[in-house]
Amino acid sequence: MSLAQKLKIALLQVGATADKAANLALVKAKVTEAAANGAKLVVLPECFNSPYAVTAFPKYAESIPEGETTQFLSQLAQDTKTFIIGGSIPENADGKIYNTNISFNPRGELIGKHRKVHLFDINVPGKIRFIESEVLSPGNKATVIDIEGYGKVGVGICYDIRFPELASIAGRKGAFAMIYPGAFNLTTGPLHWSLLGRARSNDNQLYVLMCGPARDMTSGYHAWGHSLVADPLGQIITEADEKETIVYAELDPELIENTRATIPITTQRMFGVYDDVAATGKCSAL
Amino acid sequence: MSLAQKLKIALLQVGATADKAANLALVKAKVTEAAANGAKLVVLPECFNSPYAVTAFPKYAESIPEGETTQFLSQLAQDTKTFIIGGSIPENADGKIYNTNISFNPRGELIGKHRKVHLFDINVPGKIRFIESEVLSPGNKATVIDIEGYGKVGVGICYDIRFPELASIAGRKGAFAMIYPGAFNLTTGPLHWSLLGRARSNDNQLYVLMCGPARDMTSGYHAWGHSLVADPLGQIITEADEKETIVYAELDPELIENTRATIPITTQRMFGVYDDVAATGKCSAL
Repeated sequence: MSLAQKLKIALLQVGATADKAANLALVKAKVTEAAANGAKLVVLPECFNSPYAVTAFPKYAESIPEGETTQFLSQLAQDTKTFIIGGSIPENADGKIYNTNISFNPRGELIGKHRKVHLFDINVPGKIRFIESEVLSPGNKATVIDIEGYGKVGVGICYDIRFPELASIAGRKGAFAMIYPGAFNLTTGPLHWSLLGRARSNDNQLYVLMCGPARDMTSGYHAWGHSLVADPLGQIITEADEKETIVYAELDPELIENTRATIPITTQRMFGVYDDVAATGKCSAL
Repeated sequence: MSLAQKLKIALLQVGATADKAANLALVKAKVTEAAANGAKLVVLPECFNSPYAVTAFPKYAESIPEGETTQFLSQLAQDTKTFIIGGSIPENADGKIYNTNISFNPRGELIGKHRKVHLFDINVPGKIRFIESEVLSPGNKATVIDIEGYGKVGVGICYDIRFPELASIAGRKGAFAMIYPGAFNLTTGPLHWSLLGRARSNDNQLYVLMCGPARDMTSGYHAWGHSLVADPLGQIITEADEKETIVYAELDPELIENTRATIPITTQRMFGVYDDVAATGKCSAL
């Protein structure tokens, strides 16, 4: 059983301004609201405490776990008795900067840390140019986190979703969901955001949770928004528009098990023809 | 350059009855029509010379290349001066039966052979039950074929498309297209047929060609039809309904190169975190 019981989740589609304290205050209000509405696991967007800009990353970067945002989320998880999949923040470590997810259990313990493996370096002339590698360094591991009492989830950050391997690894290690905090834009969002969510869920027969920031056309990066949940059949069961909102869904173990029983691809893979990335990949929780 | 020049392709959405001679006559007429309309590469559906039924496979199985259908397609490729990606036929070899694709160049030479790797064994209670492994044996290799003057294509058969690895291997070995003769049904067709085509094309930034039989509600297997072409951006550029038809498309090298230049995932993979299936997979053309 990949998911031990039904799980209500919430995706916080919130924006981030240059004011870190205000960003954290908004997160606190929204996580509290989601918990009051019954959510047991709450997902934040990519870069929820900082503007999404290469010039901002060095300025907003923090140490983990010593920094302010780690301490803030740890306390918030305890106060709201939720699992928090903490989107991502710019992390300072060993003289490098990473785009890093941190996750907590309801006791406030850091249970997972994922450094974005695939940096967002793209250039669509006249539409979108963004080169994270100008200031960021990549992570070197896939990440699977234990959600006590429920099961496991895999975590990737935004551009990581374009590379099927992280979801394959998580799924084959027993994850019931793959969670992607992300911030697609107005070019790649309409093209690929929901397609990628549907593809990763269908190929691995697990839930995919994608949480993006609300769109702010006055900021330097125009986010797609459209936080969504895809079910194990590859169907979008809920999807936001671009405005600030909380997206709720209930994840159902029966749908996972039933999908895997009826179209049994999880037991039919032909690892004699190609290797199993879950056997060869580098994966850790912390 | 993965595709050396523009290529007009045709997908023959034709059904197959119990009358093998009639099936081959229909294929001959339609390939001739497609060639007259300028197609240089023609794709046939899965099991185009036989009913799609486990009881039919032993009866219709042929040796390759000695059998009638190999000889027929070889001659047809010469007569029409086309590359023919010969869907699939039941193959008899070494006391086993395979679901096998055979492909030809315009000189009538057999240039590729793919035995379906992932057998279609599914059971959706009350909707669709089909167990190919009751009579078929699986292939043990991924397949990449050289299309002289154009480039390479990968081939998978139907259920093979649910397993991303075959397309990953072909793409990383330089294929400009992944071609799937297939016969989804009225349950899995609406759920997953076009999603899988879009996913494989977008993840590998190549064309995906999916060719299914026309639907015949008087036959024992109700095929989805909906032969389609997905472009390297994961967009469906043409899709049939369920009726007998020929689907045409022009594959454009510029779109492949432009997609790979602007969203450069083909050069950004992090093989230090997970292995490259194209380096570890078993792949051959014949």
